[in-house]
Amino acid sequence: DAAAVMRRCDVLGACSEEPGRLTRPFASPAMQQVHEHVTSWMREAGMTVRKDNVGNLLARYEGRDGRSPTLILGSHLDSVRGAGKYDGPLGVMVAIAAVQRLQDSGTRLPFAIEVVGFADEEGLRYNIPYLSSRALAGDFDAADLKRTDAQGISMADAILAFGGDPVRVREDGWHGGDLLGYVEVHIEQGPVLEARDLPVGVVSAITGQSRHRLRFTGEAAHAGTTPMDRRKDALAAAAEFVLAVEAEARHTDDLVATVGQLSVEPGVTNVVPGQAVVSLDVRHWDDKVRLERSGLLLQKARDIAARRGVSLQSEPVADTQSVRCSPGFMSLLTQAVESVGPPATKLASGAGHDAAVMAGLTDMAMLFVRCKGGISHNPAESVTEEDVAVAVDVLGKFLELLAARS
Amino acid sequence: DAAAVMRRCDVLGACSEEPGRLTRPFASPAMQQVHEHVTSWMREAGMTVRKDNVGNLLARYEGRDGRSPTLILGSHLDSVRGAGKYDGPLGVMVAIAAVQRLQDSGTRLPFAIEVVGFADEEGLRYNIPYLSSRALAGDFDAADLKRTDAQGISMADAILAFGGDPVRVREDGWHGGDLLGYVEVHIEQGPVLEARDLPVGVVSAITGQSRHRLRFTGEAAHAGTTPMDRRKDALAAAAEFVLAVEAEARHTDDLVATVGQLSVEPGVTNVVPGQAVVSLDVRHWDDKVRLERSGLLLQKARDIAARRGVSLQSEPVADTQSVRCSPGFMSLLTQAVESVGPPATKLASGAGHDAAVMAGLTDMAMLFVRCKGGISHNPAESVTEEDVAVAVDVLGKFLELLAARS
Repeated sequence: DAAAVMRRCDVLGACSEEPGRLTRPFASPAMQQVHEHVTSWMREAGMTVRKDNVGNLLARYEGRDGRSPTLILGSHLDSVRGAGKYDGPLGVMVAIAAVQRLQDSGTRLPFAIEVVGFADEEGLRYNIPYLSSRALAGDFDAADLKRTDAQGISMADAILAFGGDPVRVREDGWHGGDLLGYVEVHIEQGPVLEARDLPVGVVSAITGQSRHRLRFTGEAAHAGTTPMDRRKDALAAAAEFVLAVEAEARHTDDLVATVGQLSVEPGVTNVVPGQAVVSLDVRHWDDKVRLERSGLLLQKARDIAARRGVSLQSEPVADTQSVRCSPGFMSLLTQAVESVGPPATKLASGAGHDAAVMAGLTDMAMLFVRCKGGISHNPAESVTEEDVAVAVDVLGKFLELLAARS
Repeated sequence: DAAAVMRRCDVLGACSEEPGRLTRPFASPAMQQVHEHVTSWMREAGMTVRKDNVGNLLARYEGRDGRSPTLILGSHLDSVRGAGKYDGPLGVMVAIAAVQRLQDSGTRLPFAIEVVGFADEEGLRYNIPYLSSRALAGDFDAADLKRTDAQGISMADAILAFGGDPVRVREDGWHGGDLLGYVEVHIEQGPVLEARDLPVGVVSAITGQSRHRLRFTGEAAHAGTTPMDRRKDALAAAAEFVLAVEAEARHTDDLVATVGQLSVEPGVTNVVPGQAVVSLDVRHWDDKVRLERSGLLLQKARDIAARRGVSLQSEPVADTQSVRCSPGFMSLLTQAVESVGPPATKLASGAGHDAAVMAGLTDMAMLFVRCKGGISHNPAESVTEEDVAVAVDVLGKFLELLAARS
């Protein structure tokens, strides 16, 4: 089945809006092609397929009786610009493969399975992520329908053109009865599994993020005529902050903190910088640690600025909470991994996923698949068939263990 | 006479190409206006005035006999965009004031004085500095005549329109017989005199400059999924370098070293920087110290890069040598300052001046005048009449001492 998953990811990877590279936005002709392929594979696995208003593809494999609760499996089918083939589609293909096995062996579980191919996780077209999982989780904001894409097409019109009714997106919220939970398979998008030499890993949480923007203001001055002890160099202050951020994260378990942007004014060779603006991105699975360390870093910035006689302005840009994975599901996934073979390992997800939104609706868990070099959002994104085989086996075993528990 | 100097700087400060701010490029109508004013003041001081081909204004005050050697006094009459009133014109006005005193008292010295108002020091119009002092020093490059300004006008055409003959700019080189030297009064453009609470200072040298461009290349990576110990953060390496540059300069007397530019790729909040490019500007009056410290800083950059597993490319961008002021002139200027009143102080010039070019032709010295906050190249440029009075007195005393020595 892993070979089929790999082949299918190749097929979907060719469904793009741009020649020569993979770019598949929400409600695009490329997504329509993907739906045609995925629908046929879902039907082949014995599922009944429907599309909701926002454009999610949902396929149901019934359980032992009509009233059984439902487990949702899924991931997203859209992509970033210049994407890889696996970020998103892999999780949907692995879910279909697991159902295919049930179908092939004539197995019905004490719960139904609904496989979802989400319409928009990356937010490429309308610049808001998790658009379609928010619809399923009942958290869709109708005001977003007025957003326009780069061509000026409103989201409402895009949904209409894709066959949905924008007025009824609110009805896409789950109303299929009792839910057992949501499980998503996804590439790791990081180097941890590769470093640990493991094919898969059990996700413990999707980390929260604190983002800030800091502006150090010193005094622009002539680089030739201003002695060192008369300078108020905004870049030197920012540089000290960059290193403080790195040191703090290095000394705190599981914390990642990044200065990804730094711009200098006036930014010419022979002028001491008068202003430096930096971004700060802090993530940890434990919100308490994240908030505490963000606060500490802002305090360090203030200290650096004060000591150097430069001024500091900072503003919060974003703050998202950490979402813990369901302990029960994590335990079942851990057992499943160990029964398939490799040692089980846990890791937090530093990137966001539909699962974080689905956690607002039901219990949630994720299984990460090793990806080469930790690279994603790039054509070089790569997974091995061997690792995918492990993922399919683990998901199958997970369903078996969950059925035994039910 | 200081009041006249201040008034004249105000008059010249109103001769601008742009309404509301001072911008006076080479060979412009604004420069033509300046020439008319300055010519009349030069004549008033008993000098005969001529304009050379490149557009320098030269005025001669004869010595005791026709064959006496010549001392050149001067500075430049052009400006940067959005300039202050004193950078350049002050030196010409102080020189005219000193000659006016000789004229008023009927004094002839054992040498002639030639006051030069240089046509282009800042390089605003053709993007090469010292254009016109190079003509006088016999170092003009005829190839520059083909350069064009922002409107596509060649330097040759600009010279023609300003009344010069571009073919004969080479003849602008000094051919007026024996030279005693060149002395320039100029605002300091730095905060040293203000910090020492002194109106004027004797310049010891015009410092040399080493400029380099350094590129740190690490690995762009996801800010959420890449653990700290797996990062090759180009910005963190660059930040370490910025602080190393600052520390090295702080610990080396008279060294100034500046990172004025820093740009980050890809430069987005949630990506660990893969590349950071920085500028390095190192200046010291002693070329040996400058070259040694530049080399040391490049070695530090290599060490930082190696320790962090990022790569480093560096390239030299510019290298200009330090020019020492004439010890004999410095000694006379020092005596002159002390006889006028304030303690004499020496300081190096971190900025370039026409004097550095004139040093290729003859002995050179400079007197700096305190400017408020060290600010220049800015409408806020400011000097006091009291300090200018000291400068006029010092220059007058210098001429007297030089005459006594001759």
